[in-house]
Amino acid sequence: MSKMPETTMADLSLADKTAVRKSSVIARRFSDVSTCSFSSACFTGTSEEDDVSPKDVKQVNTRGSNDFCVKNIGKAGFGRREIAIAEQEMPGIMALRKRAADDKPLLNAKIVGCTHINAQTAVLIETLMQMGASIRWASCNIFSTQNAVAAALAEAGVPIFAWRGETEEEFWWCLDKCIHSEGWQPNLILDDGGDATHLMLKKYPEYFKSIKGIVEESLTGVHRLYQMSKAGKLTVPAINVNDSVTKNKFDTYYTARDSILDSLKRTTDIMFGGKQVVVCGYGDVGKGCAEALRGQGCIVYITEVDPICALQAAMNGFRVVRLAEVIRTVDVVVSATGNKHVVTRDHMNRMKNGCILCNMGHAISEIDVSSLHTPEMTWQHVRSQVDHIIWPDGKMIILLAEGRLVNLSCSTVSSFVVSVASSTQALALIELFSSPGRYKSDVYLLPKKMDEYVAGLHLSSFDAKLTELTTAQSKFLGLNKAGPFKANYYR
Amino acid sequence: MSKMPETTMADLSLADKTAVRKSSVIARRFSDVSTCSFSSACFTGTSEEDDVSPKDVKQVNTRGSNDFCVKNIGKAGFGRREIAIAEQEMPGIMALRKRAADDKPLLNAKIVGCTHINAQTAVLIETLMQMGASIRWASCNIFSTQNAVAAALAEAGVPIFAWRGETEEEFWWCLDKCIHSEGWQPNLILDDGGDATHLMLKKYPEYFKSIKGIVEESLTGVHRLYQMSKAGKLTVPAINVNDSVTKNKFDTYYTARDSILDSLKRTTDIMFGGKQVVVCGYGDVGKGCAEALRGQGCIVYITEVDPICALQAAMNGFRVVRLAEVIRTVDVVVSATGNKHVVTRDHMNRMKNGCILCNMGHAISEIDVSSLHTPEMTWQHVRSQVDHIIWPDGKMIILLAEGRLVNLSCSTVSSFVVSVASSTQALALIELFSSPGRYKSDVYLLPKKMDEYVAGLHLSSFDAKLTELTTAQSKFLGLNKAGPFKANYYR
Amino acid sequence: MSKMPETTMADLSLADKTAVRKSSVIARRFSDVSTCSFSSACFTGTSEEDDVSPKDVKQVNTRGSNDFCVKNIGKAGFGRREIAIAEQEMPGIMALRKRAADDKPLLNAKIVGCTHINAQTAVLIETLMQMGASIRWASCNIFSTQNAVAAALAEAGVPIFAWRGETEEEFWWCLDKCIHSEGWQPNLILDDGGDATHLMLKKYPEYFKSIKGIVEESLTGVHRLYQMSKAGKLTVPAINVNDSVTKNKFDTYYTARDSILDSLKRTTDIMFGGKQVVVCGYGDVGKGCAEALRGQGCIVYITEVDPICALQAAMNGFRVVRLAEVIRTVDVVVSATGNKHVVTRDHMNRMKNGCILCNMGHAISEIDVSSLHTPEMTWQHVRSQVDHIIWPDGKMIILLAEGRLVNLSCSTVSSFVVSVASSTQALALIELFSSPGRYKSDVYLLPKKMDEYVAGLHLSSFDAKLTELTTAQSKFLGLNKAGPFKANYYR
Amino acid sequence: MSKMPETTMADLSLADKTAVRKSSVIARRFSDVSTCSFSSACFTGTSEEDDVSPKDVKQVNTRGSNDFCVKNIGKAGFGRREIAIAEQEMPGIMALRKRAADDKPLLNAKIVGCTHINAQTAVLIETLMQMGASIRWASCNIFSTQNAVAAALAEAGVPIFAWRGETEEEFWWCLDKCIHSEGWQPNLILDDGGDATHLMLKKYPEYFKSIKGIVEESLTGVHRLYQMSKAGKLTVPAINVNDSVTKNKFDTYYTARDSILDSLKRTTDIMFGGKQVVVCGYGDVGKGCAEALRGQGCIVYITEVDPICALQAAMNGFRVVRLAEVIRTVDVVVSATGNKHVVTRDHMNRMKNGCILCNMGHAISEIDVSSLHTPEMTWQHVRSQVDHIIWPDGKMIILLAEGRLVNLSCSTVSSFVVSVASSTQALALIELFSSPGRYKSDVYLLPKKMDEYVAGLHLSSFDAKLTELTTAQSKFLGLNKAGPFKANYYR
Repeated sequence: MSKMPETTMADLSLADKTAVRKSSVIARRFSDVSTCSFSSACFTGTSEEDDVSPKDVKQVNTRGSNDFCVKNIGKAGFGRREIAIAEQEMPGIMALRKRAADDKPLLNAKIVGCTHINAQTAVLIETLMQMGASIRWASCNIFSTQNAVAAALAEAGVPIFAWRGETEEEFWWCLDKCIHSEGWQPNLILDDGGDATHLMLKKYPEYFKSIKGIVEESLTGVHRLYQMSKAGKLTVPAINVNDSVTKNKFDTYYTARDSILDSLKRTTDIMFGGKQVVVCGYGDVGKGCAEALRGQGCIVYITEVDPICALQAAMNGFRVVRLAEVIRTVDVVVSATGNKHVVTRDHMNRMKNGCILCNMGHAISEIDVSSLHTPEMTWQHVRSQVDHIIWPDGKMIILLAEGRLVNLSCSTVSSFVVSVASSTQALALIELFSSPGRYKSDVYLLPKKMDEYVAGLHLSSFDAKLTELTTAQSKFLGLNKAGPFKANYYR
Repeated sequence: MSKMPETTMADLSLADKTAVRKSSVIARRFSDVSTCSFSSACFTGTSEEDDVSPKDVKQVNTRGSNDFCVKNIGKAGFGRREIAIAEQEMPGIMALRKRAADDKPLLNAKIVGCTHINAQTAVLIETLMQMGASIRWASCNIFSTQNAVAAALAEAGVPIFAWRGETEEEFWWCLDKCIHSEGWQPNLILDDGGDATHLMLKKYPEYFKSIKGIVEESLTGVHRLYQMSKAGKLTVPAINVNDSVTKNKFDTYYTARDSILDSLKRTTDIMFGGKQVVVCGYGDVGKGCAEALRGQGCIVYITEVDPICALQAAMNGFRVVRLAEVIRTVDVVVSATGNKHVVTRDHMNRMKNGCILCNMGHAISEIDVSSLHTPEMTWQHVRSQVDHIIWPDGKMIILLAEGRLVNLSCSTVSSFVVSVASSTQALALIELFSSPGRYKSDVYLLPKKMDEYVAGLHLSSFDAKLTELTTAQSKFLGLNKAGPFKANYYR
Repeated sequence: MSKMPETTMADLSLADKTAVRKSSVIARRFSDVSTCSFSSACFTGTSEEDDVSPKDVKQVNTRGSNDFCVKNIGKAGFGRREIAIAEQEMPGIMALRKRAADDKPLLNAKIVGCTHINAQTAVLIETLMQMGASIRWASCNIFSTQNAVAAALAEAGVPIFAWRGETEEEFWWCLDKCIHSEGWQPNLILDDGGDATHLMLKKYPEYFKSIKGIVEESLTGVHRLYQMSKAGKLTVPAINVNDSVTKNKFDTYYTARDSILDSLKRTTDIMFGGKQVVVCGYGDVGKGCAEALRGQGCIVYITEVDPICALQAAMNGFRVVRLAEVIRTVDVVVSATGNKHVVTRDHMNRMKNGCILCNMGHAISEIDVSSLHTPEMTWQHVRSQVDHIIWPDGKMIILLAEGRLVNLSCSTVSSFVVSVASSTQALALIELFSSPGRYKSDVYLLPKKMDEYVAGLHLSSFDAKLTELTTAQSKFLGLNKAGPFKANYYR
Repeated sequence: MSKMPETTMADLSLADKTAVRKSSVIARRFSDVSTCSFSSACFTGTSEEDDVSPKDVKQVNTRGSNDFCVKNIGKAGFGRREIAIAEQEMPGIMALRKRAADDKPLLNAKIVGCTHINAQTAVLIETLMQMGASIRWASCNIFSTQNAVAAALAEAGVPIFAWRGETEEEFWWCLDKCIHSEGWQPNLILDDGGDATHLMLKKYPEYFKSIKGIVEESLTGVHRLYQMSKAGKLTVPAINVNDSVTKNKFDTYYTARDSILDSLKRTTDIMFGGKQVVVCGYGDVGKGCAEALRGQGCIVYITEVDPICALQAAMNGFRVVRLAEVIRTVDVVVSATGNKHVVTRDHMNRMKNGCILCNMGHAISEIDVSSLHTPEMTWQHVRSQVDHIIWPDGKMIILLAEGRLVNLSCSTVSSFVVSVASSTQALALIELFSSPGRYKSDVYLLPKKMDEYVAGLHLSSFDAKLTELTTAQSKFLGLNKAGPFKANYYR
């Protein structure tokens, strides 16, 4: 990995894994205190995690296959139940599954997947398989795998290589097992962060001859693809689904709106009414956080660097301030910028006793957590994902998820929102697989029409009814009755 | 207990305990599936609960005392930490503690307490003790005790008799241990539900001679007191803090606003945006639920029997409907009426697949859960507090907390709100203790001025500053500068 | 009038009239600039107002009657149209009219009315007449009469004596014409401010022998009644409809919510988004203003003297401040306290250039307007109801309605809200008229059941459907199926 | 004009003018009824409008110039006051004026302007002049000119040719006077609708040799420019400010949010609470309307043709329906689609009695008003901009502004929002004037950086403070500290 293109964002990907691993170590240190986790989805205990690597354990599913590597195949029953629950909240991807059941649009597709592995991903994976694809799958993050779900997939015959708490070496081993398998050569990649793409590029560059395309869902991975493209190293088409309209309009904002409340509540049992909160950043995440918190009776301040977002915040009724102005008085600080060191040690020094601090943004380093690891500071791990950081004078702040993304660590992802993203990914894979020649070796955005198709798939779950244009109206507007309705540059 | 006054509401109190016990049996049946609880406050495992009764175990705290009975004195450390966290969110009661530290207004008070036992109660108990009182305490509910907190109190020398999962027999045994103790005769009662009052009345009626008053915080208990008063059996003054302004204005509404979201999220991970929800009842609980859900993007319908509340709902922008009109289409049904059988089997038969059903009201019987215990129905316990009830045709609804109060079962109570209620209780106890003769043998409401005093104690935590009347203004309005500002009939 | 009981509040009533008259003089001075008024209800020009008193003009309606005195009977057509429009938005009073058409519950009632005279009042008056009453009516305010509406009533045969811009002498003359008429002796009074009651008391005390009761709708008038009662001078029953639940719950809050936006918009065309507003007082008016302004994107601060209201404001997400803290930075100051001199010259000195200042409260003197009438200040009347007050250094503030109630002066009253109040008044009149002996010579609140009846009358216009209690439920709750549902002390 | 490119949208422009003129005729028919207008900005009476054309009247300003044509130069004083008020609410354009006072970036620019003429436009015009430009200006709409403002400009020496109620012939005459003036040849065009551009193209094509560019602010005009460009007829650069970010983000949404409430209130005095409203279209206008109405307690339904917008509406908590589903029950219908015949006669036939109907969209024909002009229907003009349309059976609906844009007709435009748009226009003019060669003969969007500059100009009025990136952060993000912060494709 040391030869990877040395850019800030790419580094992040590694930093991310390292940071997560370190935190898991810290968490273990306090495990005597916090044996109860908070989330409905975390049913696998942590006590067993210290032992043998799953790599070194032989497991066989009830069909007799051992082409997988998970924590404990015995948990498959519970994982299957979680998948069943997720299916009910994923109307779009289930509708796609139904529609594609007969014509198998991915027949003969061979997909390497490298994403977070949870119940919602399982629904996507099994949909791709019912569309005709064969797949091999690894996790894109050493800490985010739901072991029981991975077990359920393994039991169902999916070659899956992932568990919670992988070492970095195990991470690459798992990914390698997915890319490289005798008698099976991938022709599509679904990537989250670009690691599958890059490992293949480094170790199996010849595989790219049969690759029909890459679908990439993360900001980091997209950034890497654009760099490859610029450097002339991208030899296959790629679709950037991270910047699709549905992702921007639905995933980011609505997820933030739900998960900020949930994350704060599950960790701190805070009562929202009257609390003063500063949200750093008024992009889609910040907008979602700010609206939700105000809706529950918080007084919300915004910090922004971008005048357009700042003006929106102001006209939406939020005071736009600099962090230093309010840091002494606020009860909660939420960082949602995608930037680094937005909350510095200096800010934290000035927070009031009991101030809650969390990160809803992108980068691991939004909060300068490392600056808190100095000898005079006392860290007290009081609950899962909750640390009290205590100053020599007794002042204490409450840090959630050690500064990592609180919405991933302390809340659960809504199946509905994932359904929108997953449907987009499935359609992108079908598009690349079934339209050879339409796309060149470049990075593409999803055609607007597919965005609208995905949105339409999800309307029924709201009992929402679209109005159809009359012939006269469609002529008047110069639009096809079936869309697309948005200009191509719409986001 | 069989001789208790036979009224509907009094029955409820018993039914409540029975129902809770039954449900714990059911829960145990599925314990292989759901060993992980969802809440930050439920750190005591359930696996050990089947065994020996704490009654039959000898435990001694580090001071050598054994005048208590809790689950496991060894958990005191963790309980103390929870109490410390609660103290930070209870500005009012902590302010009272500080102000009363010197003049010990409860010196020589001997209080029997019978309430829910959790970290917040512990803060109240220790405040009463610092005010000079000696206390003995039992739980008012066989299932609501936080064992670690009880342990911490026991360790600190509080004679406490309570654990989670008491039998009915154990419940009365505990209470008896509090009322009757050699060399200690109570002179004040703090009751939640009226059980301490009634046990004393049945078994130790002579104790009432030294009782200076009763403070009762529950609807049920207040109802019993008014009945006693009517029947001429109330021989001491009582203060009804259940109907205090601060409780009505703050506890009910604001608690509902926070806990409806939290309860639904922790149990079902539902995404709120676009969900159709019917809230039955538009009292303070219903108002809180409806506002919070709309704030998160739900479409909310209201049912009401009272035209004034119905008109408020309508003018606040909610469709006022009959339950039957919307039952086929809603995603969530929240019962918040205080009435019984608001949601009937017939309604449940017509709910759509996946509909979520929960109770935010008062009575155990708002949802006719017993009607679901018929042979053709399948109950599947999928997570703690979450059952899937499945019809023969495969239609499934999601029942939370088996129809019990979802805000108590699936969320946590905000320390802040409890601080308001606890401050009120402490002031009521002081009032009864220090003003002998001012109150007759009747049921009183808290003087308005005390309500205002409690509200004032909590303003500082919001950095809120009161304006003071000028002399000219107070003369103009005919009000004292220090209040009370409300007419006596204000609620 | 000089012999009237000399209380602060009673003085107010006079002050009010004087203040209004003065302002009309000022307005006239600038009439060359602002000949166009802003409101849909102000169709009577001002140019003709300077001339002859209507008292001195002979007018006859088309039926040949001259038992009235209005500005211009010729405007009856337009007034009738306004009444027709109002009828459509007054479902409750129209439903009452329909229900009472046959049984004439006010047959033989003879009512003296003294209220504001506008289209909505006309609907009430004509409803009372269709219930069988004969009436005589004057205005309670020298400036609030809608001349065209008065004309329409006169044309319809109603003995009405009122016009916009009465002198004080004319005011008492009109009222006298209503109370004292040959061959007609009143037996009921509907009063707004107590002037009819007091004039009768002073000049025709013997009339009280036949009076069956007084219905009073204003705070001032109620205050006077309680004083009379205390002084033993109240010889008939009176119903205080000012404190009825429907008035409190609907009239005050909802009217404020609508009219604060409307008043500010019509006078200043302000864009709300991002404006900083301080609302002084968080009673029902303040709550309505604060919610509406926040809903449109304003940042709202609250000042309060009462800790309970202050705590509500805080927990609802408003910063609670002292006026001095924010006065230099806010864009708008709204006074809604019912207190006097809440906004002082000192505050105004510190307001920023362009700050808008208005009064939504009760008292004429909430804003110390008289302190602005000093020689160094320049008053510039820029539009109807809008003055620029300019300091010597050029700093300018925008004062609305010269500090009088901006919702009355710069907005229109919603017919719907008036319908609720009018229905209450009609029911109170019927109650007093048809239940002789039930009420003693005291001041009563409206029975809760009537409040609920009035609320129910208005539900249909929202297409809202009440749920009915089952027999089991009504037994469980101990309530009659038809209500009342609220305890008597509920407000 | 008959030779203009015959496209649907271009037709619209003409239809628009005709429709407006026709409506003014209708309005006049009812002028006996409604002599009072509702808006603070409409101080010029209508009684005088029937007479002589201003074209045929000789007027001279106090400087002796007659190079203008307005209704009545005598109204200049009042117009100047309105301009002064507008300046206070236009911080951005005033800041630009100040900054450009010295370096005169438009020195030697000669601008033909053809836009709506009101106080806000006057601020723009006078800013352009202070930047060094000489200008000549006409109105883009025969009905929207504020005569007093035009008079004030004329008095100040601006060659302005515009009055309210121009005939079509007069419209083109005015525009011709601006384009063609002896000794003055334009080099820049600021157009709203494209009429100035097209007249010059038809009649003075040779002028284009000296034209440095066109700034176009309307959808219609932009459409025409793109057609010209496609047809190869665009010989100069043009900047499309209609699609600038600031316009989209601020103008449309925030204007809608304010003006829907204002428009409904001023015309109908409706009380919002509990009213059922359907908003057709959930673009930026629909979003603003829906949010504002819900904020005031309305129940809002949405209709949409586009699945992405429909899904947003659903997840934001609005029921998405087809118009036919709710048309029988709603109290208000707001059309905000930009489409035509969204509300048809058939819909109107089914509306309930008293339903209010208005157009917030773009096209004159959103509501099929012409279908209501059938013999059996009765039109009753009850107030300015308010017609009652009565069916033979007595059913009545309330049509606002005869189906024209209600926000323009029945509300006032916020100076603040116009300030954003005007600043953008001024910057675009400077850009075209001062960067010859940078732009080719094509249609451009405003550079993102200018959008951000304009937003920044307006922050100060909210007392909002931008945060600045640290050097490390700007490096991390790969952004310049001074922006632009948005990708070029951002909208």
